[in-house]
Amino acid sequence: MAIEFKPIGYVKTDVEKIPRHWTVSDVEGILIIEEQYKEGLTDIKPGEKIVVLFHFHKSQAFDSSFLRRKPRHHKEIKGVFSLCSPIRPNPIGLSILEVLEINDTEIHVKGIDMINNTPILDIKPHITAPV
Amino acid sequence: MAIEFKPIGYVKTDVEKIPRHWTVSDVEGILIIEEQYKEGLTDIKPGEKIVVLFHFHKSQAFDSSFLRRKPRHHKEIKGVFSLCSPIRPNPIGLSILEVLEINDTEIHVKGIDMINNTPILDIKPHITAPV
Repeated sequence: MAIEFKPIGYVKTDVEKIPRHWTVSDVEGILIIEEQYKEGLTDIKPGEKIVVLFHFHKSQAFDSSFLRRKPRHHKEIKGVFSLCSPIRPNPIGLSILEVLEINDTEIHVKGIDMINNTPILDIKPHITAPV
Repeated sequence: MAIEFKPIGYVKTDVEKIPRHWTVSDVEGILIIEEQYKEGLTDIKPGEKIVVLFHFHKSQAFDSSFLRRKPRHHKEIKGVFSLCSPIRPNPIGLSILEVLEINDTEIHVKGIDMINNTPILDIKPHITAPV
């Protein structure tokens, strides 16, 4: 049973060496969201954090050799569901980014760990207390 | 450009009245993961929290009337990207659940806010410090 999604927008950044994880990134970039979703962005404010789900569109296909891996910066082998590896059964990425500014459908953010042109699947509020 | 994913497993719970959000849920259930991904689960431990991405498979189709909404428990209208609404351009849900126990490919969890048979797309570590 296949589940189909379509990008709501794309990541733009001109930085070539992308940090390996949003927790160690201060790279800035822009989330360019499709015009049709503009009204849905109205409550995203500078200073807040947002959860961005995206497609690891350049990752190689997953196979069973990626079920357990030792990432370069780790000491131990770990299971894929305990890793942020881009090579996973469903190549969905999650980054928590800081909003710097919003201009129309362009969200300027800090903390980028996605490459240029990464398709964005969803933006969610960063929930840290009961809602 | 369509992006296709396949479920890695399904949520099982016999609770009929599902809480509206994981932050206010103590409902227990089981994530039943496909046998082929078993090795990827080896480092998920009881007591830790996991990020579960899933498909809101029973949500009605998104249209522009859902770009801004006032959820029943909110005072104000908000944009869909500032809400956890299941009716969104790409119906992907995110819940942070507590692991109670693992038996083979069954992860017993607490904090369920998904309905029975919800397709699971990914499990990620809950990152709260730089990795």
